Amino acid sequence: MSGKVYIVGAGPGDPSLLTIRALELINEADLILADDLIGEEIKKVIPEDKLMDVGKKTSGLGQEEINRLIVDLTREKKVVRLKGGDPFLFGRGGEEIAYLKKNGVKFEIVPGITSAIAVPEIVGIPVTDRNITSTFTVITGHEKDESSRINWKALAELGGTIVILMGVENLKRNMDKLRKNGMDPKMPVSIIEKGVTGSGRVLHGDLSNIAEIAREEDLSPPAVIVVGEVTRFPLYKEEEIKI
Amino acid sequence: MSGKVYIVGAGPGDPSLLTIRALELINEADLILADDLIGEEIKKVIPEDKLMDVGKKTSGLGQEEINRLIVDLTREKKVVRLKGGDPFLFGRGGEEIAYLKKNGVKFEIVPGITSAIAVPEIVGIPVTDRNITSTFTVITGHEKDESSRINWKALAELGGTIVILMGVENLKRNMDKLRKNGMDPKMPVSIIEKGVTGSGRVLHGDLSNIAEIAREEDLSPPAVIVVGEVTRFPLYKEEEIKI
Repeated sequence: MSGKVYIVGAGPGDPSLLTIRALELINEADLILADDLIGEEIKKVIPEDKLMDVGKKTSGLGQEEINRLIVDLTREKKVVRLKGGDPFLFGRGGEEIAYLKKNGVKFEIVPGITSAIAVPEIVGIPVTDRNITSTFTVITGHEKDESSRINWKALAELGGTIVILMGVENLKRNMDKLRKNGMDPKMPVSIIEKGVTGSGRVLHGDLSNIAEIAREEDLSPPAVIVVGEVTRFPLYKEEEIKI
Repeated sequence: MSGKVYIVGAGPGDPSLLTIRALELINEADLILADDLIGEEIKKVIPEDKLMDVGKKTSGLGQEEINRLIVDLTREKKVVRLKGGDPFLFGRGGEEIAYLKKNGVKFEIVPGITSAIAVPEIVGIPVTDRNITSTFTVITGHEKDESSRINWKALAELGGTIVILMGVENLKRNMDKLRKNGMDPKMPVSIIEKGVTGSGRVLHGDLSNIAEIAREEDLSPPAVIVVGEVTRFPLYKEEEIKI
């Protein structure tokens, strides 16, 4: 008997930001294949005997192996593929589904709250404000330099709010790229470390000094990097932030 | 007694895509001030005597009046301000909160699933795919031409996936802007009408003909417009789409 795979977004890490549908599916599933990025608090709401950690870092599995595993397990079980944030915003959901389709496996996609918007939001940074910005762009920071498909010149000229996911490792390189392509070196930048996990920090700086600040503060991933004027006036005071 | 306002994202319109926290707050609140954009299905989960429709279209209230209403009602009641999608992605959440702060009213922000990602997702269009696109940009389509702050040339050069919200009215103008600024006239475009309401359609075309197609098909708002190569290979077949 071939079942159906549910590709489910787990949101930014706070269980109360799971969707009704996601929680329903977690409770009904036989097996939950979880990402590194879903976070410890989400793992706590999953019964231990249902949780299979297939995160690339903790399990050592590659994308191809994960794809095969999903297909094999779905033959017997009701499988939820639980991914941090949203499955389709730099979540490789598309790739996994292409593989499922090729193998004749049915699927359903359940959107999740993306960290790109929710993590700044939770510390009081609105990613858009009609008086400040008209565009909101998300990129990944971990593209290899030589194979980057991002047009950095166009990105620097577009401006607005730019959120960089998975960008800690290449922080200095990417800030330099924006600066060298004409963005104001004084453009404010905020980095929110560890999202909604309760142990993170918010660092503030600008295009020219944020990499140095992050180095001094020993910033570690995951973190959401926000470049743009919207970071200048966070809506919460520092003491009000609860992350 | 002064209470606290909960600025809550309602997601794209399907009640099962509300967050656990949003549903909890809806149940606990004395009063729910709702947007036009939250959708009929979400309204059905709110007890009728708690629902106050302050959508600009249905209520005729302006932003300033809504702001004042929130402040006044919060003195006596536990108020949820329920907004379609996410409060901070072109949702004016920032403006409302700035007003609350000025008036000494406490608030909490609860992120919601944005239509910009979830609506394409539900019809099988992943907004990013690592083999196709490295950037994801969201804009609003309803800026006035003479006061637009969008750098259309940079946007056209950046390419990637571009999602336009509130873009039905100015569809032709905005497609022309991308084309005249150098984007390939054959760049595929998909429009998802009425999101997750069960009564919408998906229109496919390209930069040069989608406005004409939308006119012939009598497209009506709300709709999510997706420009980019990711629209070329939707993951669902037409008969599998459930919107």
